[in-house]
Amino acid sequence: MALLDGKRLALATVSSGRCPAVAELRLPGIFLDRWCGARGAMGDRPAGCFAHEIRVTWGDCDPAKIVYTGRIPWFSLDAINAWWEEHVGEGWYQFEIDRNMGTPFVHMSFDFRKPITPRHRLICHTWPESLGETSICFRVEGTQDGALCFEGRFVCVFTKADSFRKTPPPKDIRDIVTPHLPQRV
Amino acid sequence: MALLDGKRLALATVSSGRCPAVAELRLPGIFLDRWCGARGAMGDRPAGCFAHEIRVTWGDCDPAKIVYTGRIPWFSLDAINAWWEEHVGEGWYQFEIDRNMGTPFVHMSFDFRKPITPRHRLICHTWPESLGETSICFRVEGTQDGALCFEGRFVCVFTKADSFRKTPPPKDIRDIVTPHLPQRV
Amino acid sequence: MALLDGKRLALATVSSGRCPAVAELRLPGIFLDRWCGARGAMGDRPAGCFAHEIRVTWGDCDPAKIVYTGRIPWFSLDAINAWWEEHVGEGWYQFEIDRNMGTPFVHMSFDFRKPITPRHRLICHTWPESLGETSICFRVEGTQDGALCFEGRFVCVFTKADSFRKTPPPKDIRDIVTPHLPQRV
Amino acid sequence: MALLDGKRLALATVSSGRCPAVAELRLPGIFLDRWCGARGAMGDRPAGCFAHEIRVTWGDCDPAKIVYTGRIPWFSLDAINAWWEEHVGEGWYQFEIDRNMGTPFVHMSFDFRKPITPRHRLICHTWPESLGETSICFRVEGTQDGALCFEGRFVCVFTKADSFRKTPPPKDIRDIVTPHLPQRV
Repeated sequence: MALLDGKRLALATVSSGRCPAVAELRLPGIFLDRWCGARGAMGDRPAGCFAHEIRVTWGDCDPAKIVYTGRIPWFSLDAINAWWEEHVGEGWYQFEIDRNMGTPFVHMSFDFRKPITPRHRLICHTWPESLGETSICFRVEGTQDGALCFEGRFVCVFTKADSFRKTPPPKDIRDIVTPHLPQRV
Repeated sequence: MALLDGKRLALATVSSGRCPAVAELRLPGIFLDRWCGARGAMGDRPAGCFAHEIRVTWGDCDPAKIVYTGRIPWFSLDAINAWWEEHVGEGWYQFEIDRNMGTPFVHMSFDFRKPITPRHRLICHTWPESLGETSICFRVEGTQDGALCFEGRFVCVFTKADSFRKTPPPKDIRDIVTPHLPQRV
Repeated sequence: MALLDGKRLALATVSSGRCPAVAELRLPGIFLDRWCGARGAMGDRPAGCFAHEIRVTWGDCDPAKIVYTGRIPWFSLDAINAWWEEHVGEGWYQFEIDRNMGTPFVHMSFDFRKPITPRHRLICHTWPESLGETSICFRVEGTQDGALCFEGRFVCVFTKADSFRKTPPPKDIRDIVTPHLPQRV
Repeated sequence: MALLDGKRLALATVSSGRCPAVAELRLPGIFLDRWCGARGAMGDRPAGCFAHEIRVTWGDCDPAKIVYTGRIPWFSLDAINAWWEEHVGEGWYQFEIDRNMGTPFVHMSFDFRKPITPRHRLICHTWPESLGETSICFRVEGTQDGALCFEGRFVCVFTKADSFRKTPPPKDIRDIVTPHLPQRV
């Protein structure tokens, strides 16, 4: 199941110092179309978190008739920017130009569960998973027709845009984000 | 430092089971020393591995005057496809259409080290890190003017394109990939 | 004013066999920020025609802080595909895969009036301008905050998707498109 | 034939003042003979003009197994930017940031002749067709395996980047462009 679970897969990668593909050698053969369950992933998605809808189009697809992998990060970033627009009333454009605040990405990871097609809208469930002193971690889960298609984890650092230096976010940003963080019991 | 510590964050994620942004707050400085900079990353890049050159353009950049994060996966996939073209003489297009072979991505992760700009060509150093029974892991390190800008790890599964079922790769593909795998002592 | 009027500009191009830039030499110098009126263009837009809304993002912009020109055709094609989805209940994806019908583009032209930014939604007013025996012409006008940003004209040919041969569209498509054509008095 | 007659349609548009799709219905066969094929187009391409090579990839293609129309303007803009880099030693990025010079597009048109695939490199033959007092017109012809796939015409205006005001280009730019303009007998 290593390939099915982003966290366990990443753990294998790092702790073994080897690539997932190697770890996967120890796995029983399974079919790609059986790789769609993601209870663990769905489990920690906050109920009623922000959902950004994407109208998947013909031009997003490759000759395999499914969305090209390279488009999925683009969708995810649109969802994160939409999260900011929805909750702060501003997106990255206003952050940079009006607030001199940047949020460059330092890390991004994806697990792909199920192909995406134009047959349904893609719903990108998006929430901040944690807020550090100078960074924030977003999660995005993309679903179509109720099925999980991909999940991603994104780490951004808050910076002064003009100097590109790491800095804590403004208080209003922290106050807006905090209530949306998952409760840790 | 934040832009340099993607790998540290990734390690923290896993070992703590929590999001990098939170873990980051309590990492001892020794971690900073061990994980900042690109030594580790550059360390395991095979000498003389395939280098795919990308002409970064104005249109790849965002208002921060650096390449938009969403473009970097696209560059990386182009580099992996170019690796196949260089070594097999065919890319994903020919695999799918002429061989009925797909290589869908099941995992993709990136650590971003340094902004990319159009001031230099982007060199995507690309190599297969491991070959599983039915999957392959590629690594891509993007450098500009000798400095590491990002590194990515990509896991693809070999499939029968028409049935979208996981399957071992053809022998000629395995024979072409194997000599390019890093020697494990 | 040649640069302000797609039709007159194109006329100059073709009838004189010279490029607009040459025709423009005869024009009094005017400022780009005065080039935004487009009464003629607005004049022939059917009242209440289909409007496709695009959430312009940071990633669509270039370092000039406005949408990169290369993104505008992509927006326009999304709007045309959305027109089909709205009126037929299917887009290009379903046309190709479910109906074996293609609508490849044979011509596309744009006049750019005003920069697009993420400050407002981009409304793509979209309508079929004419329907030929085997082709269709779409018009798209993109506006932000009520101001015309660009207008485009698009000619597609109906084809049998598998043979890529030109063919008249199915009757149901013709019947759906016809009432949306501008009335010609 | 439809895929070959973009230029015919464009002429029809203008001479009839109506949309190509309508005009096309009543064009005498002589037009077909005169405007099909690429003779005319190839005819005015300067011998040995700058050629920008594009490695077309899987991700550029849509489910019709050909390059998505929305990608072709992007390729063309890359070719024009490459023309600047080749002849001035700087592209749009350096123009804007180092010279405070912008070259926004005011017009862009394409005729599509033949589908583009990853089977061959796409060669974008690129040249300035005319230079106005404050604007420049570029032509791009894209060929694969010697066959014309598309041709495009692009009009840019020279501006002061910070004020976004139209202005004549610097003398060095004019001196570099002029020798590359087609000789008009």
